[in-house]
Amino acid sequence: MAQSARFALADWGTTRLRVWLSDAAGTVIDERRSDQGMAVCRNGGPQKFADVFESELTAMGASPDLPAVISGMAGARGGWREAAYMPTPAPVAQIADAAVIIDGVRPVAILPGVSQNEPADVMRGEEVQIAGSGLREGWICLPGTHSKWVWLESGRIVRFTTFMTGELFSLLSRQSILTASIDASRTVEKNDAHFIAGVRQMVDREIDLSAALFSIRAGGILHDADNGANAARLSGLLIGAEVAAAKAEGPIRLIADDRLGALYAAAFATVGREYEVIDAERATRQGLIAAAQKIYEGRT
Amino acid sequence: MAQSARFALADWGTTRLRVWLSDAAGTVIDERRSDQGMAVCRNGGPQKFADVFESELTAMGASPDLPAVISGMAGARGGWREAAYMPTPAPVAQIADAAVIIDGVRPVAILPGVSQNEPADVMRGEEVQIAGSGLREGWICLPGTHSKWVWLESGRIVRFTTFMTGELFSLLSRQSILTASIDASRTVEKNDAHFIAGVRQMVDREIDLSAALFSIRAGGILHDADNGANAARLSGLLIGAEVAAAKAEGPIRLIADDRLGALYAAAFATVGREYEVIDAERATRQGLIAAAQKIYEGRT
Repeated sequence: MAQSARFALADWGTTRLRVWLSDAAGTVIDERRSDQGMAVCRNGGPQKFADVFESELTAMGASPDLPAVISGMAGARGGWREAAYMPTPAPVAQIADAAVIIDGVRPVAILPGVSQNEPADVMRGEEVQIAGSGLREGWICLPGTHSKWVWLESGRIVRFTTFMTGELFSLLSRQSILTASIDASRTVEKNDAHFIAGVRQMVDREIDLSAALFSIRAGGILHDADNGANAARLSGLLIGAEVAAAKAEGPIRLIADDRLGALYAAAFATVGREYEVIDAERATRQGLIAAAQKIYEGRT
Repeated sequence: MAQSARFALADWGTTRLRVWLSDAAGTVIDERRSDQGMAVCRNGGPQKFADVFESELTAMGASPDLPAVISGMAGARGGWREAAYMPTPAPVAQIADAAVIIDGVRPVAILPGVSQNEPADVMRGEEVQIAGSGLREGWICLPGTHSKWVWLESGRIVRFTTFMTGELFSLLSRQSILTASIDASRTVEKNDAHFIAGVRQMVDREIDLSAALFSIRAGGILHDADNGANAARLSGLLIGAEVAAAKAEGPIRLIADDRLGALYAAAFATVGREYEVIDAERATRQGLIAAAQKIYEGRT
């Protein structure tokens, strides 16, 4: 398989690394996933990133001269090599033009992220997913540890906002007073009534998030509320608060994996928002392939 | 000193234990503080609480027949002995009547907390501070790890709301993506412009809390924002969100220690709210003394 490979592509996130090989036409012919994310690699400096990346490619049988493109945290300060942010308004199709090229074992192009000056905000990786989605106008929601809501005009990221939804869920369910009342290992189902009720409470602004959180603990003490139901309620409250705060209008394009895509879609449906789901991994691969074709083959 | 002692009094919180000896007239004649809070003691079961308490009293030279009164987490499930919550509307002057008495080395009265059925909420300790404050009407704010806002009518706690403000500050400043941009050891000053700006942004609802949080990290990356200033900003955002969400009207009585009292007072002043500060520790002692006099001397 690796013989027909033309590009090595990677999305290097905080907690995981995903690598693909594609042929010249952009068809993916192999893939690997690793937990050697930015958080693990950063203490080893640039050499650690290089070693991890080469080790993944060797395991895939990739030729040493196969050129590579990487999006995500590898380009952050403290990553493999810093790739300065493109400021808004940022044309997503031109991200590849601002790549930083490392000439080591093979050429490795590190893609930049996008920054917004005021209110201060940053992204690394989502801009490649947006480029890969082919979208050019309107609201895009990219849920995750740090969810992004992006307003796109003529293929440019004009403004965006980050919500710490996924990280707050993790902190509150695993490390706070709420932990005793929440089963964080339980998968929240999109049609769980506690999830839906949490979404609705936040979107209708019945109660503020900061006041709603402790009621999960108190409900556990007073009413023996089920810890699985409480996990669903916390998820609904946090996603509902995000949807309410995003103040997006019109249809929303949701670039997400299956799990978060289903939850956010259920939240949008609950509050009567029009939406369309786009597979996040496919968007990432498409964005990386387009960047590789531009950088290494001069295609525009 | 201990010879004239008539009562042993304690406030047993999650992280610390404070013990006082008072004479029959209610004058405090000695005090001790320990870090043997509920969180440390709960794994040792009831005997651990008894041992820790007797060890503190022995160190103070208290007579073995000195009767004791304890407020706070010692009465929680998993504490020394559970003292069931008084439901709202809860007359704070009658808390002593619902005490659970342990007959061990000495009589030890464990005071109950107060619960609210819907929205589910609980308190343990604040109700004794309110009783000790002598207040009977209006809004009371008790800031802390889990801040309480209490509406009082004719000496009864009619309704209340808990905000996880202090715990969120701790989680976000010490264990989140924001940690790299925040100096959590820095004491936030009440007149810090970043604190005041954060309060104002939340009270004016310029931006939602969940969106404002990540801007602290992004500001650190893009604008090299000072980590001390960011600590002040996070504190201002969280306290401002609490003040906005509490929706209290009219003058606010602030039962607080010096540090939090100064910050909350500055927040109230910033948004033009009328307030009065009441020393939290004095209120705790007064509430415990009144309970002891009622339980052991039949005073009403």
